[in-house]
Amino acid sequence: MLLKALKIDIKGNESFIILNSVDAEKLGINVGEKIQIKADKKYAIGVARPSRSMVKEGYAALSSDLATELGIIDGEGKTVEIKRIEYSLSFEYIRKKFKGYKLSDKELYQIIKDISEGKTSDLEVLMFVFSTYYNGMDINEIISASKAMAETGNRINLGEKVVDKHSIGGIPGNKVSLLIVPTFANSDFYIPKTSSKAITSPSGTADTMSVLANVDLEPSELMSVVKKTHGCIAWTGKLGISPADDKIIQVERPLRIDPEGLMIASVLSKKIAMGVKYMVLDLPYGNGTKIKDEKDGMQLAQKFKDVGEAVGIKITSALTYGSQPVGHAVGPALEAKEALESLINPYRAPNSLLMKSASLTGLLFENVGLVEKGLGYNAALSLIFKGKSYQKLKEIIAAQGGNPDVKPDDLPVGSYTYDVTAEKDGYITFIDNNEINTLTRLLGAPYDKGAGIYLYKKENYKVAKGEPIIRLYSNSESKIDQSLQYISQKKPYEISGMLIESYP
Amino acid sequence: MLLKALKIDIKGNESFIILNSVDAEKLGINVGEKIQIKADKKYAIGVARPSRSMVKEGYAALSSDLATELGIIDGEGKTVEIKRIEYSLSFEYIRKKFKGYKLSDKELYQIIKDISEGKTSDLEVLMFVFSTYYNGMDINEIISASKAMAETGNRINLGEKVVDKHSIGGIPGNKVSLLIVPTFANSDFYIPKTSSKAITSPSGTADTMSVLANVDLEPSELMSVVKKTHGCIAWTGKLGISPADDKIIQVERPLRIDPEGLMIASVLSKKIAMGVKYMVLDLPYGNGTKIKDEKDGMQLAQKFKDVGEAVGIKITSALTYGSQPVGHAVGPALEAKEALESLINPYRAPNSLLMKSASLTGLLFENVGLVEKGLGYNAALSLIFKGKSYQKLKEIIAAQGGNPDVKPDDLPVGSYTYDVTAEKDGYITFIDNNEINTLTRLLGAPYDKGAGIYLYKKENYKVAKGEPIIRLYSNSESKIDQSLQYISQKKPYEISGMLIESYP
Repeated sequence: MLLKALKIDIKGNESFIILNSVDAEKLGINVGEKIQIKADKKYAIGVARPSRSMVKEGYAALSSDLATELGIIDGEGKTVEIKRIEYSLSFEYIRKKFKGYKLSDKELYQIIKDISEGKTSDLEVLMFVFSTYYNGMDINEIISASKAMAETGNRINLGEKVVDKHSIGGIPGNKVSLLIVPTFANSDFYIPKTSSKAITSPSGTADTMSVLANVDLEPSELMSVVKKTHGCIAWTGKLGISPADDKIIQVERPLRIDPEGLMIASVLSKKIAMGVKYMVLDLPYGNGTKIKDEKDGMQLAQKFKDVGEAVGIKITSALTYGSQPVGHAVGPALEAKEALESLINPYRAPNSLLMKSASLTGLLFENVGLVEKGLGYNAALSLIFKGKSYQKLKEIIAAQGGNPDVKPDDLPVGSYTYDVTAEKDGYITFIDNNEINTLTRLLGAPYDKGAGIYLYKKENYKVAKGEPIIRLYSNSESKIDQSLQYISQKKPYEISGMLIESYP
Repeated sequence: MLLKALKIDIKGNESFIILNSVDAEKLGINVGEKIQIKADKKYAIGVARPSRSMVKEGYAALSSDLATELGIIDGEGKTVEIKRIEYSLSFEYIRKKFKGYKLSDKELYQIIKDISEGKTSDLEVLMFVFSTYYNGMDINEIISASKAMAETGNRINLGEKVVDKHSIGGIPGNKVSLLIVPTFANSDFYIPKTSSKAITSPSGTADTMSVLANVDLEPSELMSVVKKTHGCIAWTGKLGISPADDKIIQVERPLRIDPEGLMIASVLSKKIAMGVKYMVLDLPYGNGTKIKDEKDGMQLAQKFKDVGEAVGIKITSALTYGSQPVGHAVGPALEAKEALESLINPYRAPNSLLMKSASLTGLLFENVGLVEKGLGYNAALSLIFKGKSYQKLKEIIAAQGGNPDVKPDDLPVGSYTYDVTAEKDGYITFIDNNEINTLTRLLGAPYDKGAGIYLYKKENYKVAKGEPIIRLYSNSESKIDQSLQYISQKKPYEISGMLIESYP
């Protein structure tokens, strides 16, 4: 069928084509089915979205990527030929996984390639995700998927001396990368730390760093920063690495599904693409984290190690204490402030932040062979206390276009604050990570960079009735109100005294 | 956030809202997340689809159902308040099923209600489908889902004497409803047969009947036809029964997934909504059908019986021979023609069509207690041979606005035909149902009502080299060519001689 092409822009995972319901019926095309579009001598594949009134009969509106692929400019009305296509090769492979069979290297490559090129519909991607969730992925499948995700996107080449640190997440206030990167970057290795912006958490590393410098780097900008300073803290957004993974995450995220096999492939595909050769993996363990128990954590560490070996990355994992936030601050600006303060004056840094950062940096030093086993922690601490880490962070901030001389107090935090106080005397016996995350998001983070919370009191701290426990920050007064309402329903912390009850 | 509302119409499963990417980012909203929209004092929920250029900052385009719900007319620019909402109750229940727990009556009702009201995204519906596929549904869950699907849509009330016939499908040429309905409608019971239009098969019952009469009936029209003639053959499209099921099928279909529990609930919800009290269920069994073996078929029959009892429908199941097409004709007009011919002159009707129709009608007669066990088949045959069934079909056609005196040869079949001939002497040893279905679709069915195939020869027929085996019909010459190409690659039938090989 010949249709006049239009260009349209709706954000989604997929290359799609809106055509009139009458035309769709004539072609026997249903919502979500794939269509082949031919313009001049170019072919592209899109997903059908029939509409009764949005486009007239005889017209087809193409998503901008499809239009670009076919050389169609908005309003031009170029004629395209469209036809319903039978299922693609990769759909057959997705069905194979769906039924519980193992996929070969070639089959996974085809699936990942089709996903990266937008040839699959959201529903097909989700089918793949569920199939890997329920049927699992073996080590070979994870290796194949990791490689395929890396190969179908941009690659960064910084030579052989490239390391990275990664956390599987789940814990609030985990600003350790802002200490680890500048500490490690004092070596002759490169540590090009990239991370996604937070979506479900209140502040990702990229959100926190964005308070101090520009994190939206193009590949060439990243290369130049890293070559100059040996480190960077950037957002993956403009790098174009592992595009299939981005699309998989986009359908997983709203549903809060994260199959282990794809999670490992997701992490490692980005490391492969960045040319990472050594890595330390942070596995936070405790209430609200992704690790059930120590055994579970060790098994995951083993899988990462096995896949890492196959793709040329030497991985050391660390199960870390994750039952409560790291440090006292949660939220982009508050975390950046706490990190900066800790590097400027490590003697006053929160113990949890300092110890975790130095431990992970130390493991990296040992992993690459710069220091002997057991000596990494002290080597890292020494760099922090000597001010080398702060000096290096300033260099990195400058290289990423920020002000290296920024003072912690210059960082703008929420203009509205509220102190939540203890309702009785006692001890803080529990801080709920999930509630802290939700609360910080309710206050406006990560979009509102100044939104967040400061925990005056952490677990085992003694409190007296009326003493402040948490300070809330937001740039919206109504969000402070909403958060207080939330706190009254769901306690993010527990206070217990020694006396539980008295009678009469 | 306050935005100006616009109305838009893109067909999809879900109530959605397109907003500018900048506004979406401000609200922390991602693709596929749910948004609460408030207009005056009305609230509605839609799924977010951020766009960079389709709507300007400050505007929100609502899908037409949402706009209607909120009383928004296109172009009006009414102000609406939108905010990101935390996950709904039903999403938590979907997650519960996803993790393998059983759902209660109340939980399933909430999920089905949210699906029927478009409050769930396609991705959430699909998550529910996959969860039931991998974790199964027990009898209680199937009962709850069937009831909920029926209760959240329109209901038809024709009293207590209502029967139906249903086939789980998969077999080409299965036009038996066109014989069963008019045969059974000679009784004092009602048989309001409704069916969906074919999507993956080349002709559904509604497609075939549409050649003879109007099948797009509103509830009141259907009631009037059935009260007058005791039967009807209609499309479910305009009846508004089991809307949740329609939405579930829309996401299942492109992926070719059909979890057993939801399939049973889908069938029975529509029967409950139609007020059916007795039912015969056709379970075609053979190559390319949905039934693996006899045991599998009997287990499925048992499940249908158990759920039927709980919802007040007495179900008799029949495992039927399904290794090759029923009769000789496949495709809407060709099937309607064969059915009409068979009722006009049963002595020349294909044996498979006559026997299957009479057997199933007979089981229905026995099920409702009109005839004794074992006598149903002959009672049905007798009505067909006495011309009572043909007379009744004419009444039904007339009541549905068709021409009751239409002759089989009046029905327009494809203007292009081609006879595929035997390449050697021998016997037809195999006809592939799936290939016959694909072939008929390639010829243009079901959209092209005249497209289809006529099988001169079925299994065990003797053929001589050069004798015609299949006649192809289409209204498009190029589709005939495409089909011939397809046949040359994938044989829809096999011819074997007695001599397999010779040497030397």
